[in-house]
Amino acid sequence: MQKATARAHPNIAFIKYWGNCDDDLRLPSNPSLSMNLAGAHTETTVEWIDGLTADDLEINGQPATEDASQRVSAHLDRIRKRLGIDVHAHVASENNFPMGAGIASSAAAFAALTVAAVAAAGETLTERELTTIARMGSGSASRSVPTGFVEWFAADTHEESYAQSFAGPDHWNLCDVIAVISREHKKTVSQAGHRTAMTSDLQPARVAGAQARFDICRQALVERDFATLATVVEEDSNLMHAVMMTSRPPLFYWLPGSLTVMQLVPEWRQQGLNVCYTLDAGPNVHCICTADAADEVRSRLQALSEVVDVRMTTPGGPAEVTR
Amino acid sequence: MQKATARAHPNIAFIKYWGNCDDDLRLPSNPSLSMNLAGAHTETTVEWIDGLTADDLEINGQPATEDASQRVSAHLDRIRKRLGIDVHAHVASENNFPMGAGIASSAAAFAALTVAAVAAAGETLTERELTTIARMGSGSASRSVPTGFVEWFAADTHEESYAQSFAGPDHWNLCDVIAVISREHKKTVSQAGHRTAMTSDLQPARVAGAQARFDICRQALVERDFATLATVVEEDSNLMHAVMMTSRPPLFYWLPGSLTVMQLVPEWRQQGLNVCYTLDAGPNVHCICTADAADEVRSRLQALSEVVDVRMTTPGGPAEVTR
Repeated sequence: MQKATARAHPNIAFIKYWGNCDDDLRLPSNPSLSMNLAGAHTETTVEWIDGLTADDLEINGQPATEDASQRVSAHLDRIRKRLGIDVHAHVASENNFPMGAGIASSAAAFAALTVAAVAAAGETLTERELTTIARMGSGSASRSVPTGFVEWFAADTHEESYAQSFAGPDHWNLCDVIAVISREHKKTVSQAGHRTAMTSDLQPARVAGAQARFDICRQALVERDFATLATVVEEDSNLMHAVMMTSRPPLFYWLPGSLTVMQLVPEWRQQGLNVCYTLDAGPNVHCICTADAADEVRSRLQALSEVVDVRMTTPGGPAEVTR
Repeated sequence: MQKATARAHPNIAFIKYWGNCDDDLRLPSNPSLSMNLAGAHTETTVEWIDGLTADDLEINGQPATEDASQRVSAHLDRIRKRLGIDVHAHVASENNFPMGAGIASSAAAFAALTVAAVAAAGETLTERELTTIARMGSGSASRSVPTGFVEWFAADTHEESYAQSFAGPDHWNLCDVIAVISREHKKTVSQAGHRTAMTSDLQPARVAGAQARFDICRQALVERDFATLATVVEEDSNLMHAVMMTSRPPLFYWLPGSLTVMQLVPEWRQQGLNVCYTLDAGPNVHCICTADAADEVRSRLQALSEVVDVRMTTPGGPAEVTR
């Protein structure tokens, strides 16, 4: 087999990844936890072609930018090294969701790329190893390899910083109702942002508390305890953005409309709706809610002039070879 | 003399006060630094009246709320104790600016109250002692007693946590161009907010860096170095709001319109305008600028739909007895 296609979902972090102890290996400063998003995916085909003089990447049918091509090629280098091959590849990737606007496109992209590239070479690796390889392409991509609700461990070594599922997508029918505030591509890509994390005086304190929040969040998910989940998810999101906005230079991912939604969601929860907010490195607000609250959350979001679109998604499966 | 009137200006902090080591004495967790605001003032008349059975307070010609009356009476108790008197007072206070919306009304109020009450009793205290008494009424009131640019020291004892001027109002013709985002009274008064500061995991790190920021800011003011001032003022404001929004429960003082202005101001600075932002415990954005930039800043703010009013003020003098 020289060619394979894999599909992976993006994920929304409930406990955030922000900052590395090791930038080259992308060993994260803290453990994180996420839910795959069924409603969105990246599908990537990798074809290893003898005689090709360089890797070649297209995204959504267009030749990729120089930056994207280099990042993908660097990732293929890691896979070539691991598999002991010396061939270049043609890579074609399709997203069914907008890139760079708060839905983690690089997570799905590097998860799908890793799984497709290994399969195309006719190799079989453990899921655990696939998560560590994907991690080196984009940290949160490690969490898009396993299914459903996923934990990614912080560790000192490449092998120990892996991700695994702790509950399948059917464990709890949560919804992520995404309030799209802007479709513009964000100014600072997450990769660059991670490097600024340690310039914030607040990052050590955020990291110091992360394991405790991780434990609370994981247990709340296991026990389907929404009230506990809501508090820790919002707190963890606020902590990450607090670090971002106190970095040097400061990073503000929120737009005014993000704040509008962030201020309404806790009020809705006080009114009895099971909903909480979380924001990745972008302006869109992920409103995490129980299935019974999802339609109401969607219609309330749609009524806001600051919200340009609403997407609704349920827990997603693992990265998989599709053909 | 049984009756005296004093006038005091509010102040805008460049290095923020947030959180106490001692709530009763209002000994602050960190040193802070501010500029008095000439364009706004509180004028307070205190009359000590023999035979009055209780203190009596009116604000802007109306009987004050129970909460405000109790807080003023508690402050008069401190002054009675210090001066060795046992008389109640009629207090009438007038503000020429809206209360509770980001302009520190309690600072001007407790500075004027302290100065008027002492003068009405026919006593003369040092400015240093007046700042420590005012501090117990409202922490930042200590900074509204001296003139111009004022530093307030963090210390372990009542006597050592005083404020003093390090430059008069004529030292540097900075302007505070205030973008009024909302005239609504804020939901959480600062007094309650200060008590939540230590519930944020980030407060120790903010406090740990405060003396360094204070030193940088003070020197930038002494040297009239706007670029340095701008960076440290915005950073310190962001740090305080980072602590607020990660407190338990979280406190969000920003409104969407606050964020609009906060995102524009650094862009304007990059375009060559000497302006930076800072926000107290409220949604209004204080745009600190050099005098030559003030008209341009004002007209740019007035053009924003989120800005309901713009006020412009220069450095102010001390709290003074007016009659």
